[in-house]
Amino acid sequence: MRILITGAAGFLGSHLCDRLLADRHAVIGMDNFITGSPDNLAHLMGNPDFAFYRHDVSNYIFIPGRVDAVLHFASPASPNPASPFSFSNLPIPTMKAGALGTHNCLGVCHARGARFLLASTSEIYGDPLEHPQKETYWGHTDPVGPRSMYDEAKRFAEALTMAYHRFHGVDTRIVRIFNTYGARMRLDDGRVVPNFLQQALRGEPLTVYGDGSQTRSFCYVDDLVEGIVRLLESDYHEPVNIGNPVETTIREFAETINRIVGNQAGIVFKSEHRLGDDPQRRQPDIGRAQSILKWEPKVSLEEGLARTIPYFKQKMGLA
Amino acid sequence: MRILITGAAGFLGSHLCDRLLADRHAVIGMDNFITGSPDNLAHLMGNPDFAFYRHDVSNYIFIPGRVDAVLHFASPASPNPASPFSFSNLPIPTMKAGALGTHNCLGVCHARGARFLLASTSEIYGDPLEHPQKETYWGHTDPVGPRSMYDEAKRFAEALTMAYHRFHGVDTRIVRIFNTYGARMRLDDGRVVPNFLQQALRGEPLTVYGDGSQTRSFCYVDDLVEGIVRLLESDYHEPVNIGNPVETTIREFAETINRIVGNQAGIVFKSEHRLGDDPQRRQPDIGRAQSILKWEPKVSLEEGLARTIPYFKQKMGLA
Repeated sequence: MRILITGAAGFLGSHLCDRLLADRHAVIGMDNFITGSPDNLAHLMGNPDFAFYRHDVSNYIFIPGRVDAVLHFASPASPNPASPFSFSNLPIPTMKAGALGTHNCLGVCHARGARFLLASTSEIYGDPLEHPQKETYWGHTDPVGPRSMYDEAKRFAEALTMAYHRFHGVDTRIVRIFNTYGARMRLDDGRVVPNFLQQALRGEPLTVYGDGSQTRSFCYVDDLVEGIVRLLESDYHEPVNIGNPVETTIREFAETINRIVGNQAGIVFKSEHRLGDDPQRRQPDIGRAQSILKWEPKVSLEEGLARTIPYFKQKMGLA
Repeated sequence: MRILITGAAGFLGSHLCDRLLADRHAVIGMDNFITGSPDNLAHLMGNPDFAFYRHDVSNYIFIPGRVDAVLHFASPASPNPASPFSFSNLPIPTMKAGALGTHNCLGVCHARGARFLLASTSEIYGDPLEHPQKETYWGHTDPVGPRSMYDEAKRFAEALTMAYHRFHGVDTRIVRIFNTYGARMRLDDGRVVPNFLQQALRGEPLTVYGDGSQTRSFCYVDDLVEGIVRLLESDYHEPVNIGNPVETTIREFAETINRIVGNQAGIVFKSEHRLGDDPQRRQPDIGRAQSILKWEPKVSLEEGLARTIPYFKQKMGLA
C-alpha cells in the first residue's frame, strides 16, 4: 500500500513510518513540525519508499499519485500546561488538527477510495466514572474545561470519522490510544515518562505531585504500533482501545525507574498541581482488541524502560 | 452595531434579524438555504439596514465594512431521522457548520475585534444523568452514537469558542438553547411541535410515540430571543442555558394542543421509535440566566401556541 501518515515527525508517527516501511509499504510522511521533530525522520531521508511533505494538515491536502490509506496522527498531545508544546498552550492548532485536519484526511480518503485510521485517545473518556474504560463507555469530559481543546477535538474527530463511514461509506478505523512511551518522546513536553527519566539519569530525586497514588497504564511503543497495524489490517469500524491494562501508581512507577536507572536520589513529593480535570485513574479495557485483533501488549514496563533509556542518554549527551 | 447572523433564514436566525433590526442595529444575514428558507427573510428585502449573503459558513467569510458582532446560528437542528432536513441526514454539513463554521466566525471576530455569540444547544447534555441541567453539568453524549454529528459538533464549537476567548481574548458568549417553538418553524422537519400542530389543524389524531411520559420543556421564540439579546449585551463568557423550565409530558403537550386548536380527534399511541439515544427528559436550570441576565420566560404554553397557530394555518393553506 501507499500510506499517508500525518504527524509523521512525532513520537508515534515516526515509529509507524518505520514499521510500515519494514512491512514493505510506501510511506508519505506529513508534518508541520509544531510539536514533531525532523530528527525523528532523519534516518529515512534517502529511502526511496519514503516521501515527506512539510504541510499543516488543517490546510487542504493534495498528494500526487495513489493513496491507499491515511493514518491521521497529527496533533499536540501533551497535557502539561507547563510545557509550550502542550495542547493547552496550543489550543487553536490542536482544534484545527482535530477538526479541519480530520476533515481534510477524510476528504482524501473519500476521493481516493483510501482507508482511514484516526488516532484517537483515552482523553475522550475524560475523568472517567467507570474503570477500566470499555469502548462502549461514553466518557466524562467538560466541553468548556481546561482540557476541552483536546478532548472535544478528538471526540469531534471520532464523530466525523463515523459520519464519513456511515454516510459516505469510507473504510474507517478508530484507535483510542492510552499512555505510551519509548524512544523519540519529546524530552521537554512535560509528560511523566520523560520528566522521570531525565531526573533519574541526572541522579536527581524524582518529583511526584500529590501523594503518588494516582494511577496510569503505560504501553511500550512497539506494542502500540503492533496493535495499530492489526487494526489497520482488520475490517472493524468501531473504536478500539490500544494500551497496556497493567495499572501502576505514579509512586510505584517512579520507584521502578529509579531501580532500573540505578538512581539513589529517591522521590520528592510536591503539592498537587493538577491541570483542571487531570484524571486520577485511566486504564484500558482491552477485551475488544484481544478478541478482534488477537492483540495484547508483550513488553513489560522494566523491559520497555530498558529499551527507552539509551535514547534519553543520547539526547541528554550522556551516551 | 453592525451584526452578522449566520443561519439568518432559519427559524431562530430570522427572528433574531427582526429583533435586532427593531433595536436599531444593522444586520447582515447569511444562509446557504440547506435548511433555512428565503420565505423567512422575504419581508426584510428592501430594508436599508439589512443585507444578505447567500453563503455556506463552512467556507471562508469575507464581509466588506465594519462587523461588530457575529451570531453563529447556522446548523441543521432537527433530531428526527425521518426528515431529510435532520442533522442525522445531513451529518457532514452539520459537522462543517459546527467546526469550520465556528472557526470562520471566530476568525472574523478575532480579525475585526467583534463580539461572538455561539448558538449551542441542550443537546450537548446528551441523555442527561442530572435533572434539571445546570451549565456546570458536563453532559452525557456518545462520541460515536447516532446523534454524535450534532452533539459533538456543538461541544467542539463550545470548546473552540472558549479557546478563542482564553487564548486570543475574543469577546465571546455561549447560549445553550433548549426546545423552542413559534412561527417560521419548518413544517416538514419532523419535530414534535409542527407535527402535532399540523395533525391538530387537519382534525387528525395526534401521534404520540411510546406512552407519552417522556418530557420536554418548550420555550416560545420571543422569550428565547429576549434571553439571547440580554446575553449578547452582557459581559458573561461561560455558557448560559436559555429555555423554559416548565416540564411537560408529551401526552400533556398533545392534549394542550388539541384543546387550543379545538381538535376532537384525540391521540393515538404508537410503539416507540427513538433515535438511538433520544433523551427521556430534558429541562433547563435557568438560575444562571435569572441571576446574570435577569431573564426568565414570560409566555405561557397556551399563549405561545395561540400566537404560533396562525403561521401554521397560513402555511397549510387554511388561513
